[in-house]
Amino acid sequence: MAYHLLKGKKGIIFGALNEQSIAWHIAVKAHEEGAKLVLTNTPVAIRMGTIQHLGGICGAEVIPSDATSHEDLENLMKRSMEIFEGKIDFMLHSIGMSPNVRKGLPYDALNYDFFLKTLDISALSFHKMLLTARKLDAISEWGSVVALSYVAAQRTLDRYNDMGDAKALLESIARSFGYIYGKDKKIRINTVSQSPTMTTAGAGVKGIDTLIDFTERMSPLGNASAEDCANYVITLFSDLTRKVTMQNLYHDGGFSSMGMSERAMSQYDKSFKDYS
Amino acid sequence: MAYHLLKGKKGIIFGALNEQSIAWHIAVKAHEEGAKLVLTNTPVAIRMGTIQHLGGICGAEVIPSDATSHEDLENLMKRSMEIFEGKIDFMLHSIGMSPNVRKGLPYDALNYDFFLKTLDISALSFHKMLLTARKLDAISEWGSVVALSYVAAQRTLDRYNDMGDAKALLESIARSFGYIYGKDKKIRINTVSQSPTMTTAGAGVKGIDTLIDFTERMSPLGNASAEDCANYVITLFSDLTRKVTMQNLYHDGGFSSMGMSERAMSQYDKSFKDYS
Amino acid sequence: MAYHLLKGKKGIIFGALNEQSIAWHIAVKAHEEGAKLVLTNTPVAIRMGTIQHLGGICGAEVIPSDATSHEDLENLMKRSMEIFEGKIDFMLHSIGMSPNVRKGLPYDALNYDFFLKTLDISALSFHKMLLTARKLDAISEWGSVVALSYVAAQRTLDRYNDMGDAKALLESIARSFGYIYGKDKKIRINTVSQSPTMTTAGAGVKGIDTLIDFTERMSPLGNASAEDCANYVITLFSDLTRKVTMQNLYHDGGFSSMGMSERAMSQYDKSFKDYS
Amino acid sequence: MAYHLLKGKKGIIFGALNEQSIAWHIAVKAHEEGAKLVLTNTPVAIRMGTIQHLGGICGAEVIPSDATSHEDLENLMKRSMEIFEGKIDFMLHSIGMSPNVRKGLPYDALNYDFFLKTLDISALSFHKMLLTARKLDAISEWGSVVALSYVAAQRTLDRYNDMGDAKALLESIARSFGYIYGKDKKIRINTVSQSPTMTTAGAGVKGIDTLIDFTERMSPLGNASAEDCANYVITLFSDLTRKVTMQNLYHDGGFSSMGMSERAMSQYDKSFKDYS
Repeated sequence: MAYHLLKGKKGIIFGALNEQSIAWHIAVKAHEEGAKLVLTNTPVAIRMGTIQHLGGICGAEVIPSDATSHEDLENLMKRSMEIFEGKIDFMLHSIGMSPNVRKGLPYDALNYDFFLKTLDISALSFHKMLLTARKLDAISEWGSVVALSYVAAQRTLDRYNDMGDAKALLESIARSFGYIYGKDKKIRINTVSQSPTMTTAGAGVKGIDTLIDFTERMSPLGNASAEDCANYVITLFSDLTRKVTMQNLYHDGGFSSMGMSERAMSQYDKSFKDYS
Repeated sequence: MAYHLLKGKKGIIFGALNEQSIAWHIAVKAHEEGAKLVLTNTPVAIRMGTIQHLGGICGAEVIPSDATSHEDLENLMKRSMEIFEGKIDFMLHSIGMSPNVRKGLPYDALNYDFFLKTLDISALSFHKMLLTARKLDAISEWGSVVALSYVAAQRTLDRYNDMGDAKALLESIARSFGYIYGKDKKIRINTVSQSPTMTTAGAGVKGIDTLIDFTERMSPLGNASAEDCANYVITLFSDLTRKVTMQNLYHDGGFSSMGMSERAMSQYDKSFKDYS
Repeated sequence: MAYHLLKGKKGIIFGALNEQSIAWHIAVKAHEEGAKLVLTNTPVAIRMGTIQHLGGICGAEVIPSDATSHEDLENLMKRSMEIFEGKIDFMLHSIGMSPNVRKGLPYDALNYDFFLKTLDISALSFHKMLLTARKLDAISEWGSVVALSYVAAQRTLDRYNDMGDAKALLESIARSFGYIYGKDKKIRINTVSQSPTMTTAGAGVKGIDTLIDFTERMSPLGNASAEDCANYVITLFSDLTRKVTMQNLYHDGGFSSMGMSERAMSQYDKSFKDYS
Repeated sequence: MAYHLLKGKKGIIFGALNEQSIAWHIAVKAHEEGAKLVLTNTPVAIRMGTIQHLGGICGAEVIPSDATSHEDLENLMKRSMEIFEGKIDFMLHSIGMSPNVRKGLPYDALNYDFFLKTLDISALSFHKMLLTARKLDAISEWGSVVALSYVAAQRTLDRYNDMGDAKALLESIARSFGYIYGKDKKIRINTVSQSPTMTTAGAGVKGIDTLIDFTERMSPLGNASAEDCANYVITLFSDLTRKVTMQNLYHDGGFSSMGMSERAMSQYDKSFKDYS
């Protein structure tokens, strides 16, 4: 069922790879709600994934762009404004990658070139995207920008490594730029802190199955799925949430406000059972 | 413009007094978005205010009910389910009052019977509303309940007195009951922390003009109005935000994430000017 | 080993019952650090516990006082100032009780007279203690007041019931009164959010063993003990922390900043093992 | 007056420049409390400042070291352990610098090489310091590490630019490494979020006078001075705070918990006066 919440709006979606991607679901939903879209990802991700197929579903052009490159971002936004015949109303940032995680380097023996790369890809890319938009005056007044984050920004998770730090930096950039872009152009900038989700990226984290089981039992409403996230992000792109800015918004079935649930505790309790 | 976001949904709105009320604007907007409503307030408030007029606008019955009374709440919810011919999908709690503030008793000389009354009216009423609904199994699965709060729950404001404590308690009750009602019935419960608003209640707080000027200059998007708040709360009642629960959601133009803005600082700076 | 951190200081300790009590350990430590003390608890608690023995250890008088009674509090503080021949430098509030928990009434079927009693005993008693002190001008400039809290104020724990709400209210009162008493008399007021501790009160909470095991494995430094807490609170009473106020300070081995630890996750993992 | 709180302890102090530096005051106080120290800063800072004079006061060797260089850090810690004839008990990180701020580049037109440099100097240096210590097993069990931070990590301040982001990253690194180093070696890691302070670095921020006036009036206990900060940090280095870790601790006279004070509001009010 569609409400036409984004009727007449135009947006750029960064970071869809394949059907597992949260960005994929957000694109589909935004399209259903009436938005005109441009999709983007790195050339490598476009080759490896199925984003062209998504472009078909959404009637959207796919423009390759490395979000750490000014040149690419400038080209992307200029092209988008030509396609849209006007300014951009919303943008989604769903980008994160840690070479340290990929190479299995533990947090107390990480490589600093990799660390800076993690920060550049996962956090500074958001700043670059906003700076480029600001420079080109590419976003309409009362436009909305969302980046996807994770509770690791506030609470340390074993093995999440330097991605927790990258998410903390991402959320800080959302606040800092939210101030600047808000006072000047009424653009709002928020992060959505999503439940752990079994995307292609998520699947690579060791032990994610157990973590997802735990958060599912801890959260009174269960984990939020990629589809749930798409629904939520649509409201943040719509005109109904114009005064929400500089916030980190938990979309996690209640996990972030839980200390201990009955379901998680009774599962944990079983670990002490003696079956001999 | 309406999106029919609440088409087919039924809800109870607590706390509209007159056109200045945030609850008033939420009722109007919910009606426009397709909801069927019941309005309620205390008998005194109904006499003093213009809620019957709101009932006319929204095609809604007005049922008097003191939100601190179980009997009243039970009657209200039973009657509402008769009117709705089914369960309730959403509820708004917009209730707060401090006899200590009214009588001008300062925080370090307050009256404890009044303090308990502040807590009972402004916070326990929310628990009572939820407990009554739970007992009657009155809310549909995936229903949504919202209470209005204020940043005084986290940060002390001169003269706000025991209302800050009441809001902290209110937000805690939202979390505690959100866990219980979430795991059992998939009901979500959140608070919205709204900019200071010039309602009839707000207008009674001494120095609110200066405070509103300050928060306006501090917030990159300016203060959120009652109409803005109505738009936002509609998204929380809709099916698009099903996995958001146990949260306190700032709706304040960015105020809560600001340390110091240029506009507020340059106004403050003027206070030191010598005009002699 | 003693540092004489509280040499010449005088303080009142509320809430020691027996050797398991955190307040007991704080009293012992404060005495060792050179403070002169008055101990207090309700007449019932004094009879049931062994606080007179603590009085012997600390060379402290035990004055019965119900912290919900103004009269008792006024008498207590006047007597203490006589004993001290001067003002009070620090106070500890370690008081909490929920009739709903005791009677096993679940959160969605609690008794509201009990709820108000929980709030009165566990939170308003702190306000009353401060108001009485303020009225009598009983605390020296740069004095320090600490109340013990728990993470349930921020995150819901199954079965912790209305005590979570009471702790949220307690922490709010610390902020609100911290503002008033700070600007007028330079008194600082903080709460310490302590690990779950196996006190007589704690032992009554069903499932506390499993919870303590979980938090022990989640916290990189393990749970904080009552002795650890005593050490920490001493620093907050000392002259070295004069500018810390209106804060909730986690003393929990890191638990509050953890999302998931390796130790807790591998224990949880065992619960899925099939031993057949 | 000294308590010998750090008797027999050995520590490294990073970042003292001159008498205005917070690190300077911490070094002096740590020395008075019985610690043996090594002081360090970059070669340039050592030439420009008066740290050799501080070395004289504290009987401490000054070892030049660039905290962004592994080689320097390794040399520093090895030399320190030789001087100490044993492991290190505590370390202070008081390092921050933004080339973007220095060059006056605004946040929406900053230079990304500079941004990465801000992060490297102000945040990654903390990680490098900890990683080097971990690799050399240089810190004793139950050792304590503190980094100085600022509320800009949570709330945006005009003109504070990318330093707010750097502080957010610094605090995240403290949590992430606090987990790793805590579970393995019982080392605790915290940040202290200090009032704005008129150090040589602070003096360079435009408009800091007005900001300091505002925070002074907002904070019930007034701003915390560098001397106050030294007292507080000593408690965090001592054995009395062993179970506090992964925390950001506000040391700000109450500022972080204030919404609006009477003093600040009445000053603000004056800005609207007409003196014509």
